[in-house]
Amino acid sequence: MIKPRTPPGVLELLPRDQIAFQRMLDTIRATFERFGFLPVETPVFELSDVLLTKSGGETERQVYFVQSTGALEKTGDALPELALRFDLTVPLARYVAEHEHDLAFPFRRYQMQRVYRGERAQRGRFREFYQCDIDVIGKDTLSPRYDAEIPAVIHAAFSALNIGAFTIQLNHRKLLRGFFEGQGIADDRQVAVLREIDKLDKRGEDAVKATLAGEGFGLGADAIDRLMAFSRVRSQGHDDALAKLDALGAGTPLFEEGREELRALLQRLRAMGVPESDYAINLSIARGLDYYTGMVYETQLDAHPQIGSICSGGRYDNLASHYSKSRLPGVGISIGLTRLFWQLREAGLVATADSSVDVLVSLLDDAELDHALALSQRLRAAGLNVETQQEPRKLAKQLQYADRAGIRFVAIRGEDEAAKGVVAVRDLRRGEQFEVAEAELPSALRTELEQAKLKL
Amino acid sequence: MIKPRTPPGVLELLPRDQIAFQRMLDTIRATFERFGFLPVETPVFELSDVLLTKSGGETERQVYFVQSTGALEKTGDALPELALRFDLTVPLARYVAEHEHDLAFPFRRYQMQRVYRGERAQRGRFREFYQCDIDVIGKDTLSPRYDAEIPAVIHAAFSALNIGAFTIQLNHRKLLRGFFEGQGIADDRQVAVLREIDKLDKRGEDAVKATLAGEGFGLGADAIDRLMAFSRVRSQGHDDALAKLDALGAGTPLFEEGREELRALLQRLRAMGVPESDYAINLSIARGLDYYTGMVYETQLDAHPQIGSICSGGRYDNLASHYSKSRLPGVGISIGLTRLFWQLREAGLVATADSSVDVLVSLLDDAELDHALALSQRLRAAGLNVETQQEPRKLAKQLQYADRAGIRFVAIRGEDEAAKGVVAVRDLRRGEQFEVAEAELPSALRTELEQAKLKL
Repeated sequence: MIKPRTPPGVLELLPRDQIAFQRMLDTIRATFERFGFLPVETPVFELSDVLLTKSGGETERQVYFVQSTGALEKTGDALPELALRFDLTVPLARYVAEHEHDLAFPFRRYQMQRVYRGERAQRGRFREFYQCDIDVIGKDTLSPRYDAEIPAVIHAAFSALNIGAFTIQLNHRKLLRGFFEGQGIADDRQVAVLREIDKLDKRGEDAVKATLAGEGFGLGADAIDRLMAFSRVRSQGHDDALAKLDALGAGTPLFEEGREELRALLQRLRAMGVPESDYAINLSIARGLDYYTGMVYETQLDAHPQIGSICSGGRYDNLASHYSKSRLPGVGISIGLTRLFWQLREAGLVATADSSVDVLVSLLDDAELDHALALSQRLRAAGLNVETQQEPRKLAKQLQYADRAGIRFVAIRGEDEAAKGVVAVRDLRRGEQFEVAEAELPSALRTELEQAKLKL
Repeated sequence: MIKPRTPPGVLELLPRDQIAFQRMLDTIRATFERFGFLPVETPVFELSDVLLTKSGGETERQVYFVQSTGALEKTGDALPELALRFDLTVPLARYVAEHEHDLAFPFRRYQMQRVYRGERAQRGRFREFYQCDIDVIGKDTLSPRYDAEIPAVIHAAFSALNIGAFTIQLNHRKLLRGFFEGQGIADDRQVAVLREIDKLDKRGEDAVKATLAGEGFGLGADAIDRLMAFSRVRSQGHDDALAKLDALGAGTPLFEEGREELRALLQRLRAMGVPESDYAINLSIARGLDYYTGMVYETQLDAHPQIGSICSGGRYDNLASHYSKSRLPGVGISIGLTRLFWQLREAGLVATADSSVDVLVSLLDDAELDHALALSQRLRAAGLNVETQQEPRKLAKQLQYADRAGIRFVAIRGEDEAAKGVVAVRDLRRGEQFEVAEAELPSALRTELEQAKLKL
């Protein structure tokens, strides 16, 4: 006998949690499609030499290698042929480069699949987790206008997920870099300075200031104060965001370019009707220091800042330089749904879902089995999810089962009901019971369920 | 520069094929949920010692092993710790055994995930492919009544997939084994005889007869004739199925048990309204010779028998003997969707889907961008999937793009339309154009799309 157990670092769910998770996936997918993104799925493994284009990447990314039985002995010193994807960005780059001539650009794709990282096993760290990504990829160029749709998608997705108030935080790398230039911080030092500023929350202002003044950085007190003031800029509401942008001291031409793009983006968010309470400028946001070149996005749950950013991304210059000579600029975001789901559950913000089964058709008398089967099929034809009790049991047991399983309705047809041509319906959510003519049962239950959905 | 390419043996799709594939997945999922099955997802990898409970299983199953970077050197002679699932049955067994005390039995689960096999690379053979499985698992016992729901699910799924007429073929291992017993073929020889009978189509009747008469089997001519006659039994319609069952010569008590269960199943299929043209008895079907113990199912597309069974399964005695002392009998089926999709496409039976985008909101004049963005959002609020043209281009170019992308509607608002307060809608499927008041556009397009769906 072997002890049944999952490997460490995976999130395997019981069915009712899986239903809740699946609903989140479905909601995100519907939102992505609402904004015109097209589905892509890639294989779980890529060729190792394709996946690992940078030397040393395999250790950085904690890559999992894949070998079939026969290959185990042969590999020797060479890396195994296959490796599991560690994100959805590298597969996207490979996909776009491989299918470049079959795709229409700007190419808007969404991808919702699991990715794999050999993380140290630790509570809340996952070795297998879902990412839900969208990206718009241009060929040669991609207008900054596409950047404005991204917060609208984030807004629509998290509104639909209904997990509480959130704020989409906006910054622009050109604004940042232009400002740094203005302070005399050279290109090659900016990343290091940004990294220090990123630590403000953790280390506190004094410690970060000391580091920036110390050797290695050697910034003057005035420059440091301006940096601090800059990184503290947060807006509240649309007009305030524009005013805060206007109030920023002038920087280099790059700075003005960033300011102009950010202004235009704010205008388009207003045109799209994204509520101004749900986005803000936050000039401390840097993200993917070496990767993003324009807009950057983070999203926080207002009541749960400790969860960190639940949806992040930005604009990048070239998606697939390792695979294609074409310049493929893009903008995109990612939701790490496994981690988010786990955190929401830990915080009590997602409840175990009701069953995906709408109705249990009960069975009280063995002779009524065929009738119960036929009734179940009529309910299914009306679009209801139905479980049929296959063997007669005491009604109390069947009700108890439905209650524990999270099934809302139980259809009951005993001798009395059969004589009257009705079916009794126990509504376990409301704790009520009502009778309905058997022919009316499908439409009656459908109406009940549609009303319940509208109330959500 | 690295050549972007996928590993051999995977099916990666362009977006419009992915949309068609996703619709099939959605249809199957909706059907499984219609019949009260609950979703389960398991990790892509299992612990090797859990996955490979039988010695030698790893070569039989062409297992892929998984190792993180650090573990590559350490493994030595031992098998790597992790391996990719090669089907959904072993993970189900592990899941049910691991979560036994948290599940309600009979446990009805569906699972639709990819599985991995290191198959020899060959056209139409996949190393990564989707399986779509349902199983009902009982604790200690599971009434044969659950077996009758399975063909009803198969019927509903393939009716909804709309890929042509199909026949669900039914047989019962007890009927087979009881008949064999009656012919004096001992238990331990039955599997070998079945294997020969399975070759009837390939080798032809004479060759199989010769083998069964030869040494190793040594069956008499009469017994062989009865075997052949038995395995040729096919029914056409419900009454014929019952009559063919009745006409079978008596066998052992096991045979009678099988006959009785098959009769009862036919009655329940009728009660559930499964059309009698869509199922048949086929006594040559054996399937998973060592595994199934009761009902067995196969499904064929009537016009494409060369595709083979597109959905198969059966009843088994004990799901998880390696992981649990509980007896867990079950019944289930599996659809290998990747292979099916590939074959349907090869046979020209699935077309490239229309885009998931319903409407392209065009842009003719840069000054109208905000208006186009706002209109797009109103359409999205009405449940439409909308792409917004972000930069003005000639209308002909935008129409051409929509046509190539499979987007049915293009919303056009030039100067004339704006002056009249209308939007022109080009319907690329019908090749028509109509005008509608701008305020009415969301409901007008929604109605069009709902009508199109009804016609499918």
